[in-house]
Amino acid sequence: MDGFIVKDSLKRFLEEDLAWGDVTSDKILEGKDSIRVKAVIYAKEEGVMAGIDVPRYVFEILSPDIEYICHKKDGEDIKKGDVLAEVFGPASALLKGERVSLNLIQRMCGIATKTRRFVKMVEGFNVKITDTRKTMPGLRIFDKYAVEVGGGIKHRFGLADSVLIKDNHIKIAGGIKEAVERVKNKLSHTLKIEIEVENLEDLKEALEAGVDIILLDNMSPDTVRRAVEIVDKRVILEVSGGIREDNIIDYAKTGVDVISIGSLTHSVKALDISLDLFEKKKS
Amino acid sequence: MDGFIVKDSLKRFLEEDLAWGDVTSDKILEGKDSIRVKAVIYAKEEGVMAGIDVPRYVFEILSPDIEYICHKKDGEDIKKGDVLAEVFGPASALLKGERVSLNLIQRMCGIATKTRRFVKMVEGFNVKITDTRKTMPGLRIFDKYAVEVGGGIKHRFGLADSVLIKDNHIKIAGGIKEAVERVKNKLSHTLKIEIEVENLEDLKEALEAGVDIILLDNMSPDTVRRAVEIVDKRVILEVSGGIREDNIIDYAKTGVDVISIGSLTHSVKALDISLDLFEKKKS
Amino acid sequence: MDGFIVKDSLKRFLEEDLAWGDVTSDKILEGKDSIRVKAVIYAKEEGVMAGIDVPRYVFEILSPDIEYICHKKDGEDIKKGDVLAEVFGPASALLKGERVSLNLIQRMCGIATKTRRFVKMVEGFNVKITDTRKTMPGLRIFDKYAVEVGGGIKHRFGLADSVLIKDNHIKIAGGIKEAVERVKNKLSHTLKIEIEVENLEDLKEALEAGVDIILLDNMSPDTVRRAVEIVDKRVILEVSGGIREDNIIDYAKTGVDVISIGSLTHSVKALDISLDLFEKKKS
Amino acid sequence: MDGFIVKDSLKRFLEEDLAWGDVTSDKILEGKDSIRVKAVIYAKEEGVMAGIDVPRYVFEILSPDIEYICHKKDGEDIKKGDVLAEVFGPASALLKGERVSLNLIQRMCGIATKTRRFVKMVEGFNVKITDTRKTMPGLRIFDKYAVEVGGGIKHRFGLADSVLIKDNHIKIAGGIKEAVERVKNKLSHTLKIEIEVENLEDLKEALEAGVDIILLDNMSPDTVRRAVEIVDKRVILEVSGGIREDNIIDYAKTGVDVISIGSLTHSVKALDISLDLFEKKKS
Amino acid sequence: MDGFIVKDSLKRFLEEDLAWGDVTSDKILEGKDSIRVKAVIYAKEEGVMAGIDVPRYVFEILSPDIEYICHKKDGEDIKKGDVLAEVFGPASALLKGERVSLNLIQRMCGIATKTRRFVKMVEGFNVKITDTRKTMPGLRIFDKYAVEVGGGIKHRFGLADSVLIKDNHIKIAGGIKEAVERVKNKLSHTLKIEIEVENLEDLKEALEAGVDIILLDNMSPDTVRRAVEIVDKRVILEVSGGIREDNIIDYAKTGVDVISIGSLTHSVKALDISLDLFEKKKS
Amino acid sequence: MDGFIVKDSLKRFLEEDLAWGDVTSDKILEGKDSIRVKAVIYAKEEGVMAGIDVPRYVFEILSPDIEYICHKKDGEDIKKGDVLAEVFGPASALLKGERVSLNLIQRMCGIATKTRRFVKMVEGFNVKITDTRKTMPGLRIFDKYAVEVGGGIKHRFGLADSVLIKDNHIKIAGGIKEAVERVKNKLSHTLKIEIEVENLEDLKEALEAGVDIILLDNMSPDTVRRAVEIVDKRVILEVSGGIREDNIIDYAKTGVDVISIGSLTHSVKALDISLDLFEKKKS
Repeated sequence: MDGFIVKDSLKRFLEEDLAWGDVTSDKILEGKDSIRVKAVIYAKEEGVMAGIDVPRYVFEILSPDIEYICHKKDGEDIKKGDVLAEVFGPASALLKGERVSLNLIQRMCGIATKTRRFVKMVEGFNVKITDTRKTMPGLRIFDKYAVEVGGGIKHRFGLADSVLIKDNHIKIAGGIKEAVERVKNKLSHTLKIEIEVENLEDLKEALEAGVDIILLDNMSPDTVRRAVEIVDKRVILEVSGGIREDNIIDYAKTGVDVISIGSLTHSVKALDISLDLFEKKKS
Repeated sequence: MDGFIVKDSLKRFLEEDLAWGDVTSDKILEGKDSIRVKAVIYAKEEGVMAGIDVPRYVFEILSPDIEYICHKKDGEDIKKGDVLAEVFGPASALLKGERVSLNLIQRMCGIATKTRRFVKMVEGFNVKITDTRKTMPGLRIFDKYAVEVGGGIKHRFGLADSVLIKDNHIKIAGGIKEAVERVKNKLSHTLKIEIEVENLEDLKEALEAGVDIILLDNMSPDTVRRAVEIVDKRVILEVSGGIREDNIIDYAKTGVDVISIGSLTHSVKALDISLDLFEKKKS
Repeated sequence: MDGFIVKDSLKRFLEEDLAWGDVTSDKILEGKDSIRVKAVIYAKEEGVMAGIDVPRYVFEILSPDIEYICHKKDGEDIKKGDVLAEVFGPASALLKGERVSLNLIQRMCGIATKTRRFVKMVEGFNVKITDTRKTMPGLRIFDKYAVEVGGGIKHRFGLADSVLIKDNHIKIAGGIKEAVERVKNKLSHTLKIEIEVENLEDLKEALEAGVDIILLDNMSPDTVRRAVEIVDKRVILEVSGGIREDNIIDYAKTGVDVISIGSLTHSVKALDISLDLFEKKKS
Repeated sequence: MDGFIVKDSLKRFLEEDLAWGDVTSDKILEGKDSIRVKAVIYAKEEGVMAGIDVPRYVFEILSPDIEYICHKKDGEDIKKGDVLAEVFGPASALLKGERVSLNLIQRMCGIATKTRRFVKMVEGFNVKITDTRKTMPGLRIFDKYAVEVGGGIKHRFGLADSVLIKDNHIKIAGGIKEAVERVKNKLSHTLKIEIEVENLEDLKEALEAGVDIILLDNMSPDTVRRAVEIVDKRVILEVSGGIREDNIIDYAKTGVDVISIGSLTHSVKALDISLDLFEKKKS
Repeated sequence: MDGFIVKDSLKRFLEEDLAWGDVTSDKILEGKDSIRVKAVIYAKEEGVMAGIDVPRYVFEILSPDIEYICHKKDGEDIKKGDVLAEVFGPASALLKGERVSLNLIQRMCGIATKTRRFVKMVEGFNVKITDTRKTMPGLRIFDKYAVEVGGGIKHRFGLADSVLIKDNHIKIAGGIKEAVERVKNKLSHTLKIEIEVENLEDLKEALEAGVDIILLDNMSPDTVRRAVEIVDKRVILEVSGGIREDNIIDYAKTGVDVISIGSLTHSVKALDISLDLFEKKKS
Repeated sequence: MDGFIVKDSLKRFLEEDLAWGDVTSDKILEGKDSIRVKAVIYAKEEGVMAGIDVPRYVFEILSPDIEYICHKKDGEDIKKGDVLAEVFGPASALLKGERVSLNLIQRMCGIATKTRRFVKMVEGFNVKITDTRKTMPGLRIFDKYAVEVGGGIKHRFGLADSVLIKDNHIKIAGGIKEAVERVKNKLSHTLKIEIEVENLEDLKEALEAGVDIILLDNMSPDTVRRAVEIVDKRVILEVSGGIREDNIIDYAKTGVDVISIGSLTHSVKALDISLDLFEKKKS
C-alpha cells in the first residue's frame, strides 16, 4: 500500500479526531514531552491481516520519530493474541494516532477476512470473487485494497476506469443496443465495456451488441447456468445480487467467471484489534 | 443535518467516485444534456430513516437544478417498499450522484436501525445508549448523527471536547490519582472528566480523585451492580465492552447510567436502499 | 464538459492570477460596483471549437450573476472573426476572469484544431487518432477533452485505468512474459492490458503472453505493416513515436488500429481568441 | 527554484496521474518493494536547461529515499544525448514520478530554449525580452521561471503586483486620463503603473497623465520608433503583439526598452527528454 | 471587497468555530428548522466602518437564503448605537455565523478607526500613511483593506509584489551597492526597488545605487529632515519605526512622503460591535 | 504546542506572504543557494514567552535543514534583550520565514503577557481567568494556547465542545426553562451546559432548570456578589463583560469562580520581538 496514495486521507482522518488537540493526552504529558514509549498492536480475534502499513503512516504523520516493526504481512492469517506490529515513538504520537489506526485496520482486516472466507468456499472452481462500488465513502482505496489482500480481485475503482451500463442507462438510451452503440462512439480503446442484464433475452441482445463483460443481476443459479451456456466463453460473465455464504457454491458451480459481492464492503464486521502501551527505557 | 458541516465531505466522496468523469453516463448522454429525469429512492428492507438530507446535498453539489422531496424524516420507521424521497433534475447529476448517496444513507440507516433496536430493548430502564470513537474514519459526523437519530446519545466527538483518561494514560501518569491531578491542572471549566477503570478498587480511587464520569471497562453485570452501589449517583456511570443484544438487559438492570457500544459504528450492516430513474416529460 | 469535474481547477487557476486581488480593475471600478457589461469572445484565427463552457464556469465562479450565450458548440469549425460566445455580467467579474478563460480555450481550441487536422488526413483509413499522458500537468482533463472534441479518442487517463507495460517495467520484471504474468495475477477483470514493444520478436512474445493491446514503439511503416500481418486482428495494434503530418499517411496505410501522438498535447499552438468589453445599458 | 513554492502543485500533478494508484507498476513490483534502481534523465534534442530541480522535488514527494545528482544547471545549454540528472531510489517512486517530471521539464526547457533564441537575436540592442500572463493555467510559476532562465525578464506575475491599464479598463473609465487618475487614487507607493496604448495620440495622453510604463500594442516598427522619440526615456516603453523571429530585429532596432512575447508561454514546443531505468545492485 | 478573494478564508474561519456543529443552536432549533429571524448588527462605540460586506459573505456561506441590507458603507463614520446592517435569514445560519462575522468586523473597524486617526493628524501635510507586513497571519487581505478604507495606502502585499532590501539582505549581499546590483539583475521592469537604510551615509549610497523608494528606519525627525533635503524628491522617502500619535506630527513636518506604522495591524483594539436577533413573523 | 495541529495553518500563513516567491531574497541569494546563516530571535520588550516552537515549525516547513535552539520555555518571563531562540539554516528559509514567525509570536507573547497581568492581579483569590471565542479568525489555536501559557484557563474552543445558551438562544426557545429543556434532550453525557443570564431572576430560573455553569453577563460587582450567595457553590459561576485592569479586583472579591475577558484576544498589543541574521562559517 503506497504511502503517497493514502497519506492525505490519513491526515484528514487524524484531523477529524484531533483537529483542536487531545486534551487528555496533552494534560497527561505536560512537561513530559520527551517520553518515548513502545506500543504493541495485537489481534483479539482470528482473521486475515490487511493494512499493516496503515498505522505506520498514521504515526509518521504525527511524528518524524517513529520506528515501526511489522510482525505480519498483508494477506497472512492472524490468530487471537498475535502481535501484528510494534511501534516505538513519542507517547504523544502513539496516544493520538491509536484510534484512527485501529479503526482503519479493524475494518480492513474485517473485509479481508470476509473476502478470504468467500474465496476459500469457491476454491476449486474457476471463479473470481470481486467487490463493488458499495464501499464506504472516502475509504474506497482502503476497502478495495483489503478485498485484494483477502484474495479477491478489484472491480472498477470508479466511474472513469471502465464502462458499466446499468438499468438506468439503458432506460435513457432507449434499449441495450442503443446504449452499447452510444458508448462505443469514440470510446477509448483501453476501456472495456460491461453491461448489466436482468434476463436471458437481454443477455442475448447484449452479446450481439458486442461487449466485454456481462453482469447478470439478481438471477437464480439455474438462470446463471443457462447464461453460461449461451455465452460460451465469448465474454466474461459476472453475477451479482443476493449472493451469500449459504448460496455462493450454487453460483460457483454454474461456471460463471466472476462473483461480485456488495456486502464485502457495505456491511463489514470489524476485526477486534488492540494497542497496548509500555513505557520504554531511554536508551 | 446542517449542509455546511457535510458538504465538503460529500464533495470529496463524489471526487473519489468520479474525479475524472463518468465515462458511461457521459457517453450515454452525449447530445442529450438537457434530459431531466425523476428518481425515486426507496427502501428494500425495513429499518429507521437517517440521513434523508444527504442525497439532496449530494445532488445539489452536482447541479444547481435539483428538486428534492422527502417522504420520510430522520428517525421515522421505514418499511420495505417505502419511498424515502423523490428527486427531479438533470439525468447527468442523478446518475453520477446515485452511488455516493446510497452508500451513505444505507450506512446511516443501518446505524440508526441497530441503535433503535438497542434503545428499544432497554426501554423502561433509566439508561442511555451511546456510541464510541470507533466510527469509520472520515464519517464520524454521519455515524454519530445516525446514532442520535436512532435514539442514542452521542459520546464525545473527538479528542478535544471531553477528557477521557484511559488505561494508557494512567500508565504514563503513574496512577489514577496522578492522572486526574495532571488533567485538572488548568483544565477548562467547561470540560468534563471521564476515566476508564478496570475494577472496583480503581473505581474507588477514581471517585476520590474527583471526576464527572466513570467508565467501567469490560465488567460483568454483577460487578457493574456493585459499582452502581458504590458510586451512589455521585458521578455518571458508563459501561462498555462486550455488550450485545443478548446481554444488554443484564447491564440495563444494574442501574448504570450509560451503555456505550462500539459495534453501533464499527460493524454496520447497511440497510438495502435503491434508486430508480424515470424519464420525465419536459414541462 | 461537466462543471463538477473542472470547477476546482478553474478556481485554482483564478487564484493563481488574482489571489490578492486585481489592483487595476479594483481601482478603475471603485464606486462603480454595479456596472454591468457585455463581453464578446471571438476568434482571430480559424480552427475547431473546444471548451466553450469553460469561460462560463470561470465567470460563474466570480459572480452568481452571469448570463452566457454560446454561439458555437464544441467540435464545430470556427472562422476568423466568429463570435464564440457572449457574456453579460458585472464588469469586475468579466475583467478578472478574462485571462484565465482565454488561456484555457486558446489551448483547447489549439489542441482540437491540431487533432482534427490529423483525423482528416487519415479519413478513409480504419484508424483512430489518440493522445498520450504527455499532457500539461494539471490540465489533463482539458487536454484530453479537446482531443476527443477534435475527433480523436482518449488514451488511458492516468496510471490506474488501464495497464500499460513499458520498457522500464519489462526490465524490472525480467522479460515480457514475466511482466505480463505478474500483471495478470489477480488483475481486475475490467482492465485491459497493453504492452509496448520495440521489435517484432517482442511483438510475438507479447502476443503469446496474452494481452489486449500492443503498442509498437518507434517503428518504421514497413515494420508496422509486418506487425499488422503477424497480429492478424487478434489484438488491438497501436503505433507511437515520431508520427507527424508528413508521415502519418504512411502509418495509416499499414492497417494499424490506433495512432497515438504526443505532440497533440505536449506541443500546442494556441488558437488566437480575444475578448472585447462593451458597456451595457442598465435595463 | 524554491521547493516550498512548487511542492503543492507537484503533488497535485502527481495526484492527477496516480490518485488511485499505478496498476502496472504495483503489479510488476508486488513482492519486490525493496528494489532500488537508477534512472538517467537525458536530452534527445538540443536546447536550454530549465527546471532541473523539478524531478528531484517530484521524486521526493513519492519517497523520502531519493538521491538526485544534477549534471546540468538551469540556464546551461544542453546537447542531444546529454545526461541532465541521475536519480537513485525505489523503483516504485521512479516509475510513478517519471511522466510528471518529464512533462514539466520538457515544457520548461522548451520555453527557456525559445526565450534564449529571442534573447540572442536581440543581443547588442539595449532591449529586454519579457513574457505575458498568457501562461498555462496552474503553471505560471514554472513558465515564468523558465523565461527568466532563458534570459528574459518576468512581466508582472498576476493582477495584484502591478497596475496594467488595458483597453477594456480605459473604456470603463471613460478615457486614458480618467483611468490613470482613478488608479492613482490611494495607490500603493510600491506599485508601478503601466498602460496599454493603441496609437501615438493615446501615447501622448498617457505620458501626460503620468505613468511608469507604456505598452505599445500591435504597432509597426515605424510607429514604435516614433513612440521612442516622443517618449524620450521619460517612461519605460514596452512593445507587444505579433512579434516573431522574423521581425523581432525590426522592433529591437527601434530603441524600445522591452519586448513582450505571448507565444513564449502560450505556444510551447516541448523539448524531447527521456528517462531510462537501470536496475541497481544493492549496496 | 471582492467575495472571490475572501470566501475561502471565511469558510475556514467558520470551520474553526463549528467544524463539528453548534451543539447549542442545533438543540435549540431541533424541529424548528424553518424559523427565519432578523438580526441587527450595531455599533456600541464610535469609529470607522470597514468590512461591511464580510457578514454578508459569512452568512451566505451558511445559507443560500440570506437577505442583507447595509446601512453603512466602508469608510463612513459610525457612532455608538448606529445600525450597520440588517440580516434576514434562517435562525441557524445567523446564530452560527455571528461570532466569526463580529470577530472580523470588530478588528477591521478597529484598524480603520486607528488609521483614520493617524490620517487626520497629518492632514495638510503631503504625506501618506501606510501599513506593513506586520498583519495577523491569515488576515492580511482584511487588515490591508481596512487600512485603505481608513484612508491609508497599502504597502506591498507580500514578498513577491515589490522589492524591499532590508538589513539582513544587505549583510548577505555584502553592502548596499552589491545588494542593489544583485536585485537589478534581470529584475522585472514592473517592480519597484525599495531599500531600508539606518543612517544618512547609507541613504547616500542607496541613492547612488539607484532605487525607487528609500525606507528610513528608526530615525529621529531631525535626521529624517536632513534625509528629505539630501534626497530632494529624486526617490520616494518612507519613514518607519516608533511612530506614534504623540510624535507623528514631528515626522509629518519633515516633508517625508510616506509614514509606515506597524501598530496599525499588529496591535489592534477591536471596535465594540454586537448582533441582536429578533424573531420574524413568517410572511 | 503540537506541530500536527498547527503546521497546516503555518503553511497557509507562509503562502499568504510568499505564494509567488520572495523576489528580494531570491535575487540576493542567486548563485548563493548554499549559504547557511544563524538567526537570533530576541525580545525588545519584557513580557511572557508564548509560542517558542512556532518559529521552529515555520522554518522547518521552508527547509528540512533547520537547527533550532530554544532559550526560553513557554510561560517563562522574558526581559528586554533576552535571546529567545537561535536558528541555524539556509539563508533562504530564514529570510522567508522571518515575518510569519515574528507576527505570530509577537501576538502570542502579547496575549500571554496580558493574561499573566490579570492572573497576577487576582492571585490569592480563588478565581480563574479565561478567554472567549473573540479570537482572531484562523488563530484560535494560537490565541487560546497563549492564554493558557499566561496562566489562564481555556473557555470552550468552539461551538461543539460545550453548550452555551446565550440571549439569542433564549429568545428563540421562549425562555430559560424552555431553552435548558431543549438542550438537555438527548444531550451527550460528556458535555456541560452553561447559560448566560442578565439578572438575578434569570439566575434563579437557570439554577432551577439545572445547568453546570452560569455566566453572569455585564453585572456590577455587587450584583455578582449576590449571585455568588444565591448559587452557594451549586454551579460554577462565571462573570463577563467590561472587566478591565481597573476593576478586576472588585470582581475577584465577589467569590465568583471564573472571569472571562474578551480583550485578552480581541484587542492584543504585540510584544516587540526581532530577528537578526548572522552569516555563519561553513563547518
